Amino acid sequence: MWKGKDVISIRDFSKKDIEYVLKTAENLEHELKEKGSLEYAKGKILATLFFEPSTRTRLSFESAMHRLGGSVIGFSEASSTSVKKGESLRDTIKTVEQYSDVIVIRHPKEGAARLAAEVADIPVINAGDGSNQHPTQTLLDLYTIKSAFGKIDGLKIGLLGDLKYGRTVHSLSEALTHYDVELYLISPELLRMPKHIVEELKERGIKVYETSDLESVIGELDVLYATRIQKERFPDEQEYLKVKGSYVIDCEVLKKAKETLKVMHPLPRVDEIHPSVDSSKHAIYFKQVFSGVPVRMALLGLTLGVIE
Amino acid sequence: MWKGKDVISIRDFSKKDIEYVLKTAENLEHELKEKGSLEYAKGKILATLFFEPSTRTRLSFESAMHRLGGSVIGFSEASSTSVKKGESLRDTIKTVEQYSDVIVIRHPKEGAARLAAEVADIPVINAGDGSNQHPTQTLLDLYTIKSAFGKIDGLKIGLLGDLKYGRTVHSLSEALTHYDVELYLISPELLRMPKHIVEELKERGIKVYETSDLESVIGELDVLYATRIQKERFPDEQEYLKVKGSYVIDCEVLKKAKETLKVMHPLPRVDEIHPSVDSSKHAIYFKQVFSGVPVRMALLGLTLGVIE
Amino acid sequence: MWKGKDVISIRDFSKKDIEYVLKTAENLEHELKEKGSLEYAKGKILATLFFEPSTRTRLSFESAMHRLGGSVIGFSEASSTSVKKGESLRDTIKTVEQYSDVIVIRHPKEGAARLAAEVADIPVINAGDGSNQHPTQTLLDLYTIKSAFGKIDGLKIGLLGDLKYGRTVHSLSEALTHYDVELYLISPELLRMPKHIVEELKERGIKVYETSDLESVIGELDVLYATRIQKERFPDEQEYLKVKGSYVIDCEVLKKAKETLKVMHPLPRVDEIHPSVDSSKHAIYFKQVFSGVPVRMALLGLTLGVIE
Repeated sequence: MWKGKDVISIRDFSKKDIEYVLKTAENLEHELKEKGSLEYAKGKILATLFFEPSTRTRLSFESAMHRLGGSVIGFSEASSTSVKKGESLRDTIKTVEQYSDVIVIRHPKEGAARLAAEVADIPVINAGDGSNQHPTQTLLDLYTIKSAFGKIDGLKIGLLGDLKYGRTVHSLSEALTHYDVELYLISPELLRMPKHIVEELKERGIKVYETSDLESVIGELDVLYATRIQKERFPDEQEYLKVKGSYVIDCEVLKKAKETLKVMHPLPRVDEIHPSVDSSKHAIYFKQVFSGVPVRMALLGLTLGVIE
Repeated sequence: MWKGKDVISIRDFSKKDIEYVLKTAENLEHELKEKGSLEYAKGKILATLFFEPSTRTRLSFESAMHRLGGSVIGFSEASSTSVKKGESLRDTIKTVEQYSDVIVIRHPKEGAARLAAEVADIPVINAGDGSNQHPTQTLLDLYTIKSAFGKIDGLKIGLLGDLKYGRTVHSLSEALTHYDVELYLISPELLRMPKHIVEELKERGIKVYETSDLESVIGELDVLYATRIQKERFPDEQEYLKVKGSYVIDCEVLKKAKETLKVMHPLPRVDEIHPSVDSSKHAIYFKQVFSGVPVRMALLGLTLGVIE
Repeated sequence: MWKGKDVISIRDFSKKDIEYVLKTAENLEHELKEKGSLEYAKGKILATLFFEPSTRTRLSFESAMHRLGGSVIGFSEASSTSVKKGESLRDTIKTVEQYSDVIVIRHPKEGAARLAAEVADIPVINAGDGSNQHPTQTLLDLYTIKSAFGKIDGLKIGLLGDLKYGRTVHSLSEALTHYDVELYLISPELLRMPKHIVEELKERGIKVYETSDLESVIGELDVLYATRIQKERFPDEQEYLKVKGSYVIDCEVLKKAKETLKVMHPLPRVDEIHPSVDSSKHAIYFKQVFSGVPVRMALLGLTLGVIE
């Protein structure tokens, strides 16, 4: 059923699909811990095609493939590929699939991953295409929440920062509509979640609260998901500086939070979260980084058909 | 006998050598299909030294080494190597051979691969040096033809495009002199096969037909091997545009061909072959890409001495 | 005891530590030769973080990890990392350790490796940070000497070239104070070993001879360790040219040497050693390159805790 499937957009995943990936990831994490090494993907080859660099995502996928006992080939930026000779993406994909068993693609252009999936006979996993989709990030976010609380239903989840342009929070809120959660959308006025997304969330039965004031709601939250605010988004630097300061999560701000609040961040961070928070009981953003490995192991294993 | 041998030029290969590589590749392809993974090169290390980028060739070799159960180290362009510190190629090779069991080298300068082979105690495989030689391309071309027809003898093979500068077609025609074939050399006047090569082909008993008109001969052919025509070769762009158009292989042109004609291309293509041809029964250029893997598996395995 | 340990500076190593690494490396070299492939690090992942390129060192570590049966992920230059997005080294390390079992770091800034080691829960091995330390080079130098003579005690060792700025010779002479050796420091006046190092060597009981005349002492030596002299160090090019010439090791100079003299060099060389020396009985600099593999296998295996 999963064998040969592509992973392009979180929208293609039913709740049952999501739950199945999370369950498989959990099993793999435990099995790996127990046995030290696995051989599910022995003899299989992952091709990582990064047409734009993303070291973090690339290393996470490569680690996942090695943890499954498989091998990796690929490139980490487009500069040294046949693209320079005028080759179409279509031909590059048709070529690389002759060398490998599964493709992970990162591409600056929206729709590139979908095109690759249509062209290739082997499974294609989207590792981000333009401002479009990055479904494995969303799945690892869900996995991190579920690992921390044992469940997703019933949680109050705050999304903080740039909610207008942030692809991560768009996909995550989309996926959370499968669950019974309350969403707190915390952002400066200029960077509010697009109206059509808010409408859609509400239509699908999610309670949504919008605010620009973190301190007024932090006490309610089970999860606070912070994202980077990019200076370039602001026409006036003064406005940026004002906003920026009010969303720095530090130990002071966290005094108002529940004991059990968990802070997440897709990383890299610049100064949205003060380093002193790292050693607090609230911080799970490096655990979140780790979660990328079992989740990607699950996706690689399932689509390769070596795990059922 | 093969253990420790270098693979530098197709001219170094007797017909018996060629047949042995093709047979070994065929066996490996079948064995891999049957078993899923092989371990011939377990514990062995391939060093891929790409002094100029060639993603396609590099990934093909790396795939081949992984399919044999071995590991890969190396670099994909010269920019980050000791070459910058003034190190000689000789010293780079003497160094890298301490870390590996077989070297694949790609280098912009003619003769570099031969030099590397002389210096190294471990086998060296040429993955292209300047306009000189790229023997593994020729072997995979032969393998593709043999896979498609079950034989090479008796075939009528057309070589199309830039026959003057195209290293691929020079090496292939050279290798085909070991077989009983007829060659159709189809090119614009400006880009005809060099006289000395045509003479040599004839001396070695090959029937050679030269023409600039594809349509007049396409009905005769069993194989049509297309290559890229580079604009830079033409002093007058008008002439380029005229020529270029007349060598685009599309479904219209193929109507005049035999049912069994197979179209090949070393790739990347720009617009020599229309994408609509890809799904026709004639197209085997992606199968040709695939052929690079078993052929390179054979060469790696034989020169490493792990396959006999 | 070794499991989880970092390898940052040769100063952190007691004589017992050094001897243990050398002994482990020797055992691994023999075991590898005998068995063809090892599986100590099966399922383990090395992350090679090269914030500045060093192909030689990177390939040596990667070869060592593969020889142990492990896998490798990483990057070979900083250009394509999250560093560009303003991420701190601390966060990069905290991230990468989620994907791997041991980290090898090369960084242009002094102290970077120590910082990485403090941050990471997994072992960190320094592959050179600024002009500071490169401990695995020193260990492989010692291993090479011990392999050649069966011992280090009792040897007369000449260090030649740029003794002022050369990090390699500083670390090596430091490490040699654990042994009963005599050191000949041979350099132009401008590039003499810093006074405080010479004082320290003497205080720790080493007999030290300083000279600028290679020919007058070469007959005494068991080992001659040559290094590159960089033109940029000299205010006056004439002076550079004079000096440079007098330190070229060729077959003529070696006529005055003992039969058993061994010549070493950390490589890459430019013209400090004439290529004709390579095939002489004196040359062990490519054997020295090879020594990097068993020494790094030992360090990886010990810090991973897969070898005791």
